[in-house]
Amino acid sequence: MSVNQPSRILNPLQIARQLAAGFAENAAERDERGGTPKAERDAIRRSGLLALSIPGTFGGHGADWSLTLEVVREFARADSSVAHVFGFHHLMLATVRLFSRPEQWQPWFELTARKNWFWGNALNPLDTRTQVKWFDGWCEFSGKKSFCSGASDSEMLIASAVDEGAGGKLLIAALPSGRSGIGVHDDWDNMGQRQTDSGSVTFERVRVEQSELLLDPGPLSTPFACLRPLLAQLIFAHVFLGIAEGAFEEFRGYTLKEARPWFRSSAESITGDPYVLRHYGDFWVGLEGVRLLVERAAAQFDAAWRKEQRLGAEERAELAIAIGTAKVAATRVGLELCSRLFEVTGARATHAALRLDRHWRNLRTQSLHDPLDYRVQELGAWALNRQRPSPTFYS
Amino acid sequence: MSVNQPSRILNPLQIARQLAAGFAENAAERDERGGTPKAERDAIRRSGLLALSIPGTFGGHGADWSLTLEVVREFARADSSVAHVFGFHHLMLATVRLFSRPEQWQPWFELTARKNWFWGNALNPLDTRTQVKWFDGWCEFSGKKSFCSGASDSEMLIASAVDEGAGGKLLIAALPSGRSGIGVHDDWDNMGQRQTDSGSVTFERVRVEQSELLLDPGPLSTPFACLRPLLAQLIFAHVFLGIAEGAFEEFRGYTLKEARPWFRSSAESITGDPYVLRHYGDFWVGLEGVRLLVERAAAQFDAAWRKEQRLGAEERAELAIAIGTAKVAATRVGLELCSRLFEVTGARATHAALRLDRHWRNLRTQSLHDPLDYRVQELGAWALNRQRPSPTFYS
Amino acid sequence: MSVNQPSRILNPLQIARQLAAGFAENAAERDERGGTPKAERDAIRRSGLLALSIPGTFGGHGADWSLTLEVVREFARADSSVAHVFGFHHLMLATVRLFSRPEQWQPWFELTARKNWFWGNALNPLDTRTQVKWFDGWCEFSGKKSFCSGASDSEMLIASAVDEGAGGKLLIAALPSGRSGIGVHDDWDNMGQRQTDSGSVTFERVRVEQSELLLDPGPLSTPFACLRPLLAQLIFAHVFLGIAEGAFEEFRGYTLKEARPWFRSSAESITGDPYVLRHYGDFWVGLEGVRLLVERAAAQFDAAWRKEQRLGAEERAELAIAIGTAKVAATRVGLELCSRLFEVTGARATHAALRLDRHWRNLRTQSLHDPLDYRVQELGAWALNRQRPSPTFYS
Amino acid sequence: MSVNQPSRILNPLQIARQLAAGFAENAAERDERGGTPKAERDAIRRSGLLALSIPGTFGGHGADWSLTLEVVREFARADSSVAHVFGFHHLMLATVRLFSRPEQWQPWFELTARKNWFWGNALNPLDTRTQVKWFDGWCEFSGKKSFCSGASDSEMLIASAVDEGAGGKLLIAALPSGRSGIGVHDDWDNMGQRQTDSGSVTFERVRVEQSELLLDPGPLSTPFACLRPLLAQLIFAHVFLGIAEGAFEEFRGYTLKEARPWFRSSAESITGDPYVLRHYGDFWVGLEGVRLLVERAAAQFDAAWRKEQRLGAEERAELAIAIGTAKVAATRVGLELCSRLFEVTGARATHAALRLDRHWRNLRTQSLHDPLDYRVQELGAWALNRQRPSPTFYS
Repeated sequence: MSVNQPSRILNPLQIARQLAAGFAENAAERDERGGTPKAERDAIRRSGLLALSIPGTFGGHGADWSLTLEVVREFARADSSVAHVFGFHHLMLATVRLFSRPEQWQPWFELTARKNWFWGNALNPLDTRTQVKWFDGWCEFSGKKSFCSGASDSEMLIASAVDEGAGGKLLIAALPSGRSGIGVHDDWDNMGQRQTDSGSVTFERVRVEQSELLLDPGPLSTPFACLRPLLAQLIFAHVFLGIAEGAFEEFRGYTLKEARPWFRSSAESITGDPYVLRHYGDFWVGLEGVRLLVERAAAQFDAAWRKEQRLGAEERAELAIAIGTAKVAATRVGLELCSRLFEVTGARATHAALRLDRHWRNLRTQSLHDPLDYRVQELGAWALNRQRPSPTFYS
Repeated sequence: MSVNQPSRILNPLQIARQLAAGFAENAAERDERGGTPKAERDAIRRSGLLALSIPGTFGGHGADWSLTLEVVREFARADSSVAHVFGFHHLMLATVRLFSRPEQWQPWFELTARKNWFWGNALNPLDTRTQVKWFDGWCEFSGKKSFCSGASDSEMLIASAVDEGAGGKLLIAALPSGRSGIGVHDDWDNMGQRQTDSGSVTFERVRVEQSELLLDPGPLSTPFACLRPLLAQLIFAHVFLGIAEGAFEEFRGYTLKEARPWFRSSAESITGDPYVLRHYGDFWVGLEGVRLLVERAAAQFDAAWRKEQRLGAEERAELAIAIGTAKVAATRVGLELCSRLFEVTGARATHAALRLDRHWRNLRTQSLHDPLDYRVQELGAWALNRQRPSPTFYS
Repeated sequence: MSVNQPSRILNPLQIARQLAAGFAENAAERDERGGTPKAERDAIRRSGLLALSIPGTFGGHGADWSLTLEVVREFARADSSVAHVFGFHHLMLATVRLFSRPEQWQPWFELTARKNWFWGNALNPLDTRTQVKWFDGWCEFSGKKSFCSGASDSEMLIASAVDEGAGGKLLIAALPSGRSGIGVHDDWDNMGQRQTDSGSVTFERVRVEQSELLLDPGPLSTPFACLRPLLAQLIFAHVFLGIAEGAFEEFRGYTLKEARPWFRSSAESITGDPYVLRHYGDFWVGLEGVRLLVERAAAQFDAAWRKEQRLGAEERAELAIAIGTAKVAATRVGLELCSRLFEVTGARATHAALRLDRHWRNLRTQSLHDPLDYRVQELGAWALNRQRPSPTFYS
Repeated sequence: MSVNQPSRILNPLQIARQLAAGFAENAAERDERGGTPKAERDAIRRSGLLALSIPGTFGGHGADWSLTLEVVREFARADSSVAHVFGFHHLMLATVRLFSRPEQWQPWFELTARKNWFWGNALNPLDTRTQVKWFDGWCEFSGKKSFCSGASDSEMLIASAVDEGAGGKLLIAALPSGRSGIGVHDDWDNMGQRQTDSGSVTFERVRVEQSELLLDPGPLSTPFACLRPLLAQLIFAHVFLGIAEGAFEEFRGYTLKEARPWFRSSAESITGDPYVLRHYGDFWVGLEGVRLLVERAAAQFDAAWRKEQRLGAEERAELAIAIGTAKVAATRVGLELCSRLFEVTGARATHAALRLDRHWRNLRTQSLHDPLDYRVQELGAWALNRQRPSPTFYS
């Protein structure tokens, strides 16, 4: 076994923890740098975890979603950029699984497991600048997509384009990232999630075969296919929780090692200061609630996934509510915590080299993917009217 | 089968739901009246649920604590006063189980199950006005106790007194409520939990036998015995959650049946008003988090209970933290909800006959049993320092 | 000087403080009783304060609105029911001043000052059950009105009715409360503001003269006339602040006299407990902000009032925003405070005789007059779009 | 008039606005760069505003503190780093005024006004690494100081050192920044307030003359001298409010120009979205409250300043409370606003070039100067016990 191949004796979570420990070492530095975390992506490739959610019959680990998402959360504690693209890689695999025929997705699964392919995202359904042009048995994608997380340094892409001839229908395809005409741009430079490569992808007359289009059953067709947007939301919830947990641990270490009680404090050590304890108590209550909501949602997602085509609309709706609830709580608790944690460390914790602000920046950035207000509205319509969320790419 | 004996074909939760439906019918009216809910207490006596937590070998249902507490919560949705004294009845049974020798608690269990005894509380350890005087093989309790929930209309009492001769040690005894010298006073008239009979009990030279004292292993002796205060806290968490759930459902019914959108609303019906939906979304997120925290704590309590003397201090500490977390979250979410719910109904919901304010009054009153601030401090000491809560009658 | 005529040597605020001290003595008891605070209303009659806002030329004190509202706030600290109807009395006077011709309002002002008339409210514009029937030069009002605060025990009423023949126009009249056909019902029994007599008034073919109709300039006609709803909102803000201040002082007294530190506290006295101090610090910050917002709004209202017909729509809009801001802050801070204050007193403060819950009940009830959500929306439209609130009876 | 000398026809606030407009143009870019804002500091030198608080008799503008602080707030809207060092420059002038004899401070005032000196801070009383060594009639300062805001590029420094021989007394001196032995280090690199040069200063046997020591009346000696820490706190409150106002305006511009309603919104434009309006309404209520608290505190400070030695301890305490209240509110409202503002813009507002996160980073960093918890405790001790804050360098 080469040094690049960690022993399969370790279980996936142990592998993930080893990787995360490595990511943590220079996460702050890489936050400053931005760009593609090439070394970290390659370490994930070598780890075999890109095949984590792929069933054993296709060469993967056959992990359920709870375990796959637990790895996302583990990564997020150390590096939420890597966690995001790792989670989205598995979301892309779920996308072909849910939207295409077995003859399509099975080979993709096999190749991914065998070759440690990394899948990236160029699907953004709200960006309608990429258009379809039809030919005989194939078509061309031309235009631009924004927010294409994980497209850089990927082997495969999930791309979408608008078919004007079919009334503006969204066509989704799985394409090799290296196909002629595809340009992946290194133009992501944002205040948070700085190594997610969430920049733009351009398509210049990119040829797309019929067999690459995810048409049967197609997007958002059955309740089972409608699990795709829920998985995306569930990944977010895990990333948010992971960020909050990572921030909590990093600040806790700082408090224990560096912080001193204010000169007006009755306590001799920071560990006995009544207000510091109160902050930590509040953080704890918040985190514990989110942990249970997120873990419940993941378990419920696994149960729904196992039902496949037997999954009903009502059950899918209940799952959507459980995931939405977890995501709202993770967002709120996480943002509050990442900002308030500075109050238990004092001014020295603002030193730039620590980059302790990155937790707030990462969570603030990622949490704007889709607006919290409309997620809460959806939960309210359920709570008051028992109205099911209508499936879209965002719920 | 007599009319006093509901069919054992119903499981305990079904029995509880039937009882709760009856309690709900006049809960508002009884909130106004205060005093002892004699009819409701007798209905519980007849239902057999006073033997719910008593093992089958002693004639009880043999329910675990999760089920017993689920009944407390079910009652609290309809009537939090009844829920409180019902929960405390089982806490009193747990007290004799944990603090006394089998030859003591086993007959009490058997008699309770056979005769549907209701146990009341006269233990308040912070009220030191009741004193012990020793004689040869027996002693006398003399003095007063406040906050004696459920003492009225009870068959048995758990009472405590200070033994000055033994350095102020607290002696705890199980006594028939009707014993000569015991006076149960109908002097509870508070703004909430108005039918808990949490008034005062006086002891005038009440004779207490050695066999009635809970000395072996005695209070707060082993980690297992230290489950007693945790059960008390866990009962509170269930009562608080039940109040919040009951309030939510009552206001939800009002919104759907009575409320109309404000004339500036863009919605035609209240069920589509964006701000009303937002409130309900927030309520939902809050309730869901508390539900999971409370249910997790109950399951963890059952696991600890089953360990009996094998229960370690570390495990007991983790349980204390789980219960404290649930209680803090239930208090905060519940208070916010019981006050804010009026914003989705409008001014007419303040009509006195509805007594919709009773939910806030009940929760506000009960949540002052012991201060939230010090519970949060305890959680903070755990979160920051991994410091175990030191067992007292309040943690 | 008769006992019924307090010396005019005292200024109005001193008179108000003396009255408030009297109201405070049995406010809790009267909260329990509900009904009309006849003795207190008569004391106000004798005090001359019913003429407080009436200009000196008509026999009044000629107080500006800041002083009149300061008296409302002073009363609210002791008894928010009395404060509400006292404030609304002056609102009714402002209504005739703003909506009718000098030949109409001047005699009403003079009679009010001379005879110490109390004006009540039967205007509720959202209740359209009272209809107009026209005759030659006069008309009849027939139907019902809800939420008629201060109608009981009043000498004059402001009533409204819908004129179907004029496209549903709202006609407003000033009528002697004793006129034949007017029935004032003692049917207000709500959870808060229990002595505001906000019950129903019925009109059975009540004759209304042309000279009693407030038609010139009529309701909401000019920016100056549109001050009427703003005055109503400003009265609410003063009542809410007064409730919060009164609650704060009552609980503060309780803390200092009765409360003891929790046994886990590091402080020897409650006055040094870190968490108790933190609560009081938060209360203080909240109250101080509201005080400044409310006082600024009152001063701005006086400036607008003095402009009379020269008042422009833009200036009226800025005033509406200042008042709305004060009211939102007073509502939020007050509700939080009235609920959280119990955490600095402990469980004994829930004793029914203290009726310390009445502050929350009063504020919760009164704050539902019109929904906070739409007030915040209005402020948001101003903050984002500089959009003026459109004048209605609620803004 | 040279191009470097703006016309004195403009009043100071107009000059400040012109300067601020210039600062705003590259504030984001300079936030990235960090280091000394040399061009901006020189523009302030040329503007004459360094003499803003200096009385006319010494060649200054003779502005009161309300106006001086209004300029600090105006700068903070554009650039909170510049605002901080500008405010602290005037704090240093106040320090010599309050702690030294007229023969000392008057020449310093004159020279500052004439030569446009910039004063920097090396006073940090909690950093005790700088020590005094006494000689005959003079002494030496040796050691290090941290958090020396504005020391770089300054002409004068306020420095402090511990006099071990005098029981650890803190000696404070006014020194030319260029004096032999003083090293100002360019080692400030923090997550916020990046151009405040709040790095370290080293003293290597720096000679300090008796006439440079601020000994008569000395620090914290009289109530008037105790205004110094209050001015520092008041400057913070103005900086925090300015940051929040600047952030609000920048995000508002973004919302109006760039943001679009979510596809589930009932509104056609973002300006009508109910949840966006609600956010703006909340922001408005928060900002308005802080504005009044801050302006009240500044006016109260001016009144106290004018009393000079007639200022009593009680009045100084009331001022301390007013300033503390304003600072707590400004901190809380500002932090909430700077984080939540992103919810009205959406994900594109996280683009790094906009650096919209700098508002939160600046406020978070600056607000850690001294802990909020102990400020709230101080307010609580006043609110509950009428206990005066005891003067220290932080209150």
